[in-house]
Amino acid sequence: MRNLALLAVGASLVLAAAPAAAQTVNQDISASTAAVRDAALKDPTAWDIAESLTTEIGPRLVGSPAMDRARDWGVETLKRLGFQNVKVETFTASGWFRGEESAEVVGPYPHKLHILGLGGSSSTPKGGLTAEVALFRTYEEMLAQPEGALKGKIAVVTGVMTRAQDGSGYGAINAQRSQGPVEAAKRGAVAYLIRSLSTDDTRLPHAGGARPGGIPAAALSTPDADLLERMVARGKPVTLKLAMTSRYEAKVPAYNISGELPGTDPDAGVLIVGGHLDSWDAGTGAVDDAAGIAITTAAAKLAAGQGPLRRTIRVVMWGSEEQGGSSEAYLAAHKDEVGRMVVVGESDSGAGRIWTIRLPQAGRDHVAMKAFRAAVAPLNAIVSREAPRFGGADVSGLIQAGAPFVEFEQDASRYFDLHHSADDTLDKIDPAELSQNVAVWAAFLHAAAASDVDFRAKP
Amino acid sequence: MRNLALLAVGASLVLAAAPAAAQTVNQDISASTAAVRDAALKDPTAWDIAESLTTEIGPRLVGSPAMDRARDWGVETLKRLGFQNVKVETFTASGWFRGEESAEVVGPYPHKLHILGLGGSSSTPKGGLTAEVALFRTYEEMLAQPEGALKGKIAVVTGVMTRAQDGSGYGAINAQRSQGPVEAAKRGAVAYLIRSLSTDDTRLPHAGGARPGGIPAAALSTPDADLLERMVARGKPVTLKLAMTSRYEAKVPAYNISGELPGTDPDAGVLIVGGHLDSWDAGTGAVDDAAGIAITTAAAKLAAGQGPLRRTIRVVMWGSEEQGGSSEAYLAAHKDEVGRMVVVGESDSGAGRIWTIRLPQAGRDHVAMKAFRAAVAPLNAIVSREAPRFGGADVSGLIQAGAPFVEFEQDASRYFDLHHSADDTLDKIDPAELSQNVAVWAAFLHAAAASDVDFRAKP
Repeated sequence: MRNLALLAVGASLVLAAAPAAAQTVNQDISASTAAVRDAALKDPTAWDIAESLTTEIGPRLVGSPAMDRARDWGVETLKRLGFQNVKVETFTASGWFRGEESAEVVGPYPHKLHILGLGGSSSTPKGGLTAEVALFRTYEEMLAQPEGALKGKIAVVTGVMTRAQDGSGYGAINAQRSQGPVEAAKRGAVAYLIRSLSTDDTRLPHAGGARPGGIPAAALSTPDADLLERMVARGKPVTLKLAMTSRYEAKVPAYNISGELPGTDPDAGVLIVGGHLDSWDAGTGAVDDAAGIAITTAAAKLAAGQGPLRRTIRVVMWGSEEQGGSSEAYLAAHKDEVGRMVVVGESDSGAGRIWTIRLPQAGRDHVAMKAFRAAVAPLNAIVSREAPRFGGADVSGLIQAGAPFVEFEQDASRYFDLHHSADDTLDKIDPAELSQNVAVWAAFLHAAAASDVDFRAKP
Repeated sequence: MRNLALLAVGASLVLAAAPAAAQTVNQDISASTAAVRDAALKDPTAWDIAESLTTEIGPRLVGSPAMDRARDWGVETLKRLGFQNVKVETFTASGWFRGEESAEVVGPYPHKLHILGLGGSSSTPKGGLTAEVALFRTYEEMLAQPEGALKGKIAVVTGVMTRAQDGSGYGAINAQRSQGPVEAAKRGAVAYLIRSLSTDDTRLPHAGGARPGGIPAAALSTPDADLLERMVARGKPVTLKLAMTSRYEAKVPAYNISGELPGTDPDAGVLIVGGHLDSWDAGTGAVDDAAGIAITTAAAKLAAGQGPLRRTIRVVMWGSEEQGGSSEAYLAAHKDEVGRMVVVGESDSGAGRIWTIRLPQAGRDHVAMKAFRAAVAPLNAIVSREAPRFGGADVSGLIQAGAPFVEFEQDASRYFDLHHSADDTLDKIDPAELSQNVAVWAAFLHAAAASDVDFRAKP
């Protein structure tokens, strides 16, 4: 990057020269950033993208025919919007495919249960399995059981997820899903069920990936978990019949798709933002993560709305977030480029309003970021004094390799009502909230790509 | 009824004598009614009943094994609570039983749809049927089609139900479900789908009864109806594959179950209240209508909490509301008794707070009803100046035969998010709102059964 090179020549020269150069590069940035914000608030592009992806493709499981159609959709969408250097980077991921699933309480009171298998789950024996429930109100209670204690039982963990604006309830209980099958199997359980990691009260369960434990594993809807708790509380043994089939493939093709809005200065670096194209299979992947694809694609387009900026903006549609792999694949393909990445970021928390923005500390007080802060203040978005903590699963590889990153925190109060469930559909996206996201991202991308802000911490 | 007999003897005598007699009968009624209200607000009986019915029985379709278990549960519950003359009155109803159901968009974009067959639906041919969609945004648009216009098509009507505190959005759109299959068949449609009569946005469809049209008929979840609208709006033909099986039985056994808290004066008449024991099959019949069973049973018990009242209170658990028949059966078995029914009423709009109470005009200003009005004012329930309009489907026969009736209107703002769907589960009942209902009903039953209020209009 040019300014870094200048700095290397001699600090005194730079200190003298930089302000003049910066003046030219950064002039009028407040006005143009505000103009980008205003255009974004009125622009239908993001909604149209989310509408198109959820209507024309629907759920997009890695390795499914829908994902192949999503790949073509991604390429076509980027080209249609005027992105250049549109590329499909193919890699391999592991694929898990749902089959038939049913669960019912056999006794003492017959009831059908609503379940959704967890990614990585094994099938039951043909015809299903019937076993007694060992129910734990918290994951920790199950972990406290010695090895073998759950022999022949269906372990059920009904720990409750807490609703939180910052989504922190999810991380706090994530092990109940992600590690549970392994831990239940270790203690002898023949199957593993959890209360969905969810903040809703509908009868729809919430899936998600889990470390395979070699046993069938599924999520119960929250009312079904409540029902099992009430039955177990009566003191009689509760017996379930579970039937699940699924298919695992070690290697399926997956795709990271990208397009660029090239900058005027090829040496000025590249900004990389995007969402993930894959989704779980029950819903239509609207808030997770058609929204992120829509927000960042529209924002990039709007950021460069008045013609090319100094720096290149690249939008990436990562292809295997839910089942993992796109971060590693993207890093492997772009590791030589990390040094010229101005900043990276991902939108992957739904379509709720952005309420807190965390910028790399190094560039936070640059005139361009001051312009950005002023532009988004009327959007009720706080630019925090704190450094970003998490840039997104798909850019985590780039971040570990040294790329500066941003964190735009969306209001997640309602996100986990929908996440990984059949309820993740277009109607759950509020167009006004979607637009606020686009406006924040567009203002940021504009200010950062038009300016010489440097987000890298000085050695 | 004794006072009516007195009136027949001579008006002048009655006018002189009645105040003295009434003073004895009606004294302290304000204090005792308020005491009943306060006891009801703290009493767990209603919750326990709803919890028990939804946990131990679950969905209760007329003619199903679950309904036989529900019958035994009803008898046992009434006896356990001290009701006397507990009776099972058996009648026959027609039974409709759901089989397998699936629907998917075949083209132009493959999507699985969430459907729930309507009661009375026919099966598809084995292996399902595939046909093009003819979509109408309102039911009236479909009715405007001439006969034969929908030949070979799957008629889809996506009219939207309006949310309303008084539940009036349901009646306004009810024909879309109840009459739609017949009207679609008349125009040549091979199947009929509707947007659920629902105010929610979850992926769970809402069933309900419909006049059989001889074709498969089902409800779509509201997001699936939205999806079909978006596809059709693109202008290309939309093709669906539908597979449904169901079973119809002309005669299945059904049960009206009742128990009494006998009054001290056998000539003083009987008050009849209750809810319906049957339910649709997707949920656990919690708000529709375990709540009504729980509210009225607990209220009757609480109304007579300090010992027998003057009049008998009878609680009835009607056995076939959803598919019809219990009203007719109850009237047939009790038509000779209509003349001594003080008042009849049903709780069948969920567990939302009672916000408006409509009393028969004849008794509205009696001292006992003034005591009732004063008792429930702190519960935010208005005693309306208007006469009741609808007493409940299961008492409609009695009402037509001349029984006075009450209407306790519950806040239905959320009821149609849940009604007839898999989401009708216990967690949707708010214990505080349930208690408010019990307190209103208990106060009413106490004031009416302890007093000589006469709800019959004078000739």
